[in-house]
Amino acid sequence: MTDLLDFVADLPLVDHHCHGVRTGGVDRDGFERMLTEADTVSPLGTSLFDSLIGLAVRERCAPILDLPKHAPADDYLARRAELGSREVNRRFLRGTGSTDYLLDGGFLPESLTATTDFAELADARAHDIVRLEQVAEDVIRGTSAAGFAEDFAAELDRRTGNAVGVKSIAAYRVGLELSGERPVPGEVEAAAGRWLAGIEAGEPVRLADEVLHRHLVWAGIDRRLPVQFHVGYGDSDVDLHRCDPLRLTGLLRATRDAGVPILLLHNYPFHRNAAYLAQVFEHVFVDVGLATHNAGFRAPAILAETLELAPFGKLLFSTDAFGLAELYHLGTALFRQGLSDFLRTALAADALSEADALRLARLAGHENAARIYRLERK
Amino acid sequence: MTDLLDFVADLPLVDHHCHGVRTGGVDRDGFERMLTEADTVSPLGTSLFDSLIGLAVRERCAPILDLPKHAPADDYLARRAELGSREVNRRFLRGTGSTDYLLDGGFLPESLTATTDFAELADARAHDIVRLEQVAEDVIRGTSAAGFAEDFAAELDRRTGNAVGVKSIAAYRVGLELSGERPVPGEVEAAAGRWLAGIEAGEPVRLADEVLHRHLVWAGIDRRLPVQFHVGYGDSDVDLHRCDPLRLTGLLRATRDAGVPILLLHNYPFHRNAAYLAQVFEHVFVDVGLATHNAGFRAPAILAETLELAPFGKLLFSTDAFGLAELYHLGTALFRQGLSDFLRTALAADALSEADALRLARLAGHENAARIYRLERK
Amino acid sequence: MTDLLDFVADLPLVDHHCHGVRTGGVDRDGFERMLTEADTVSPLGTSLFDSLIGLAVRERCAPILDLPKHAPADDYLARRAELGSREVNRRFLRGTGSTDYLLDGGFLPESLTATTDFAELADARAHDIVRLEQVAEDVIRGTSAAGFAEDFAAELDRRTGNAVGVKSIAAYRVGLELSGERPVPGEVEAAAGRWLAGIEAGEPVRLADEVLHRHLVWAGIDRRLPVQFHVGYGDSDVDLHRCDPLRLTGLLRATRDAGVPILLLHNYPFHRNAAYLAQVFEHVFVDVGLATHNAGFRAPAILAETLELAPFGKLLFSTDAFGLAELYHLGTALFRQGLSDFLRTALAADALSEADALRLARLAGHENAARIYRLERK
Repeated sequence: MTDLLDFVADLPLVDHHCHGVRTGGVDRDGFERMLTEADTVSPLGTSLFDSLIGLAVRERCAPILDLPKHAPADDYLARRAELGSREVNRRFLRGTGSTDYLLDGGFLPESLTATTDFAELADARAHDIVRLEQVAEDVIRGTSAAGFAEDFAAELDRRTGNAVGVKSIAAYRVGLELSGERPVPGEVEAAAGRWLAGIEAGEPVRLADEVLHRHLVWAGIDRRLPVQFHVGYGDSDVDLHRCDPLRLTGLLRATRDAGVPILLLHNYPFHRNAAYLAQVFEHVFVDVGLATHNAGFRAPAILAETLELAPFGKLLFSTDAFGLAELYHLGTALFRQGLSDFLRTALAADALSEADALRLARLAGHENAARIYRLERK
Repeated sequence: MTDLLDFVADLPLVDHHCHGVRTGGVDRDGFERMLTEADTVSPLGTSLFDSLIGLAVRERCAPILDLPKHAPADDYLARRAELGSREVNRRFLRGTGSTDYLLDGGFLPESLTATTDFAELADARAHDIVRLEQVAEDVIRGTSAAGFAEDFAAELDRRTGNAVGVKSIAAYRVGLELSGERPVPGEVEAAAGRWLAGIEAGEPVRLADEVLHRHLVWAGIDRRLPVQFHVGYGDSDVDLHRCDPLRLTGLLRATRDAGVPILLLHNYPFHRNAAYLAQVFEHVFVDVGLATHNAGFRAPAILAETLELAPFGKLLFSTDAFGLAELYHLGTALFRQGLSDFLRTALAADALSEADALRLARLAGHENAARIYRLERK
Repeated sequence: MTDLLDFVADLPLVDHHCHGVRTGGVDRDGFERMLTEADTVSPLGTSLFDSLIGLAVRERCAPILDLPKHAPADDYLARRAELGSREVNRRFLRGTGSTDYLLDGGFLPESLTATTDFAELADARAHDIVRLEQVAEDVIRGTSAAGFAEDFAAELDRRTGNAVGVKSIAAYRVGLELSGERPVPGEVEAAAGRWLAGIEAGEPVRLADEVLHRHLVWAGIDRRLPVQFHVGYGDSDVDLHRCDPLRLTGLLRATRDAGVPILLLHNYPFHRNAAYLAQVFEHVFVDVGLATHNAGFRAPAILAETLELAPFGKLLFSTDAFGLAELYHLGTALFRQGLSDFLRTALAADALSEADALRLARLAGHENAARIYRLERK
């Protein structure tokens, strides 16, 4: 780990996948539970501060709150409470150097800032990504099996009016083994019927049906909206062995002619597999968000592995930050660290020129995202 | 690879998974066959000394036997024979700096030292880990389908009286795709019946039944004994593609409320997957034993990858040494090397303080193991 | 990345898996399409020159064509056209330091140089590897279900008269989940019958049948010819999740007693899995061709991961170069870089002696290949 290259330190970033920030206060237990993908803290395993992300908070976030580097966790949380969440959120969000945030508002929206508030808080542009499953789950309760496809389409049109993309969380519900074939209307109707029957029998309104997840993805493609997929690393609800992006191969083959970008999010620990897909499929893009801040000072290693096969024109930046303002800061700072370390290593090996290094940093930092999501038109 | 940090060089270690040491002499072919997970040496592939572990023997073990570093393999084996196995075993075992060894005595017990002898030889404490499948295989021959569950329970109680944990080798028999549900008595009886019928038909007494492996695991949990799982890397008997720890996700979800530690052993090349599980499940712990000594001077790279997600409170040390005294020495020395290199890199990047580095080293070196296995009560 | 060790810079190499070179000219779009495993270039993803392999072309190939390092892509292609493909091919091929090339002539043979021409162009020895599926596909059209096995055997005998090995591309057709059992004649006849029926029904003459791929592999083993397998990384036709070499475990167990070498090609991103197989099965060998040149200056990291478990007696060198002369140069230069960096790191850590480093380099560079393919008899 070395000092940031100047042009990486100053690089404008587009955070193409994150969530809203939490506005209330938080105690130590709550902070630890939001820090990683663990949702429980237990004395069996000691504190989550004793992990690379916890160390990164104390190293990189403490100074933003006027504390010395490596301040103890309790001091950090006391100072955080003293400043108040609004001030804490402003300091972290306004210091990222991100010009645009693409917000997935589909998870726990009631406890997080919505897009407009987020933009004000961060003093930046914020754009909506529509979570496909949330739309379907809102629609299903007021429709019939026969009416689902049309009602879903209408609601999706309405919600994506100002959106720059959509997102699928099929990984969390059925895994990524989605068939390449677009479901025919009869299949969609039958699947909607099964879902409705389950709801009537008392099951929660939770979409988990391979046909319908697939139908939703095609709905995004038909609207020529970039489609994000949750891939790989997530919390304990995910069956990670079903979330290898290679399982999407059939769907990627089927969708390549449409020319609509497919964005594979997170990907860790399958980031090399995702990078392969980004090389061989011209419409596939990758990031290593979420892993970036979790891995702390190891983040550069993960980015370097990803770039073995992923072309620079296919790499995007995201934090996947959720709730805690620290995560936007860490995700951004550690992405800059990883990019800078990678380019410094390449420069030291004379594997590229300085002009190339600058150009490639811009691609990954913001140009790819601006091109794919057509942000300049917004 | 750098000089060891002083506090890592002196760190007391708990080797939470290893086996007995061999007491007899060994020729070159026998030594090579015990050195790695290969069980055959062939001129087709040349000598196993020409691998990182072979080089590590010549680098790190030769001086312990009064030879120069990098002494040729034949010189090494000649000197080993000259000293005799008792002296060789004492030198290697007493130099590890391990205070406690947790011995899995379930594999080839007739050719290895048992716990008491091991403790004397190593001048350290030695504790028993009971291999669940061995108990079941000893019980099955003297019971009936209907009596199996009760007889197994009684024998397990007897054998675990002084034990600190149990171990499952389901990975070697049926893979790790174990269901999360606790088998009901009828299922256990039916499975025991199938097993007995096979034995009566002349099959070897070898447990390989998903229901029964699962029943055994729950028996350990019911006794609140930490449950170790063989995961990942092993010899050519293992179907490694069925040994990804992610396949245990369902079982881990089902067992988390019990609050009993689950220990994922070895894990390579799935160590990042295991580290993910250690982050998101509060009762899951990991090590990278076996790979540590096999990878020689690359061991630090494997440990660093594991620590990307695994909290320090969830990482344990083990050698998985078996038979050859050199393996205890190498597993220990290379774990120290990996931990020291990792902490040095973090210190150089100012990613943690020196006080943190010391504290985290203690967690991984012995505190986690002492807490999980309640060694202080022994 | 450091300067090459002298003995690695001068190391004679056997490129044990590559293809013919293209003799015609090529425009920028065609060059990019041949550069990586992507077969389409799209403005959506920008230029493939903006990837590690593209940077490596500009860094390492430009000077061979008398251009400065990092020359722009268009300048590079203009100079390439100016020199003409014959001169370009000669410069790149004659500068590799490879003494022997093992050519798989089974893919697009009409557009590439055949073995004899290649040898002349490269001023080196060239040997044939026979692609098993190509033989079967040539035979099936002129035979019957009952006659297939015999006709295939006769044609394979004819074509392997001068060959040094055979190759299976089962990975591309049915994946690597091949059973360990040798198919009995009735199974082969039935499978050939199904294939013929498909062809008569208008399907392309394309072998994709688990029984027949397996039959072909055993045909190679019966002839005591080393059997290469495509494993892992390839173009978008491959279902990469079905190409993990661990899926071959059953077949490797079944074939080990035959004592015929099995060569796992490419392997990335499953190279650690392949290395495990090379450690535990005495007849299994690995390389990291294809990934080596694609990963540019990251190639040394991939080789280092492979050598964690793979004994040096089991590692081979290949480029998997296809069509573009640059790929032979890059695959070779980056293998040397990786091997040199690995040995330098080991030497710096005092993990081996200089004499060992030299000896191990020779094993991987040419001795293993010469022994396995019995090249000295040719």
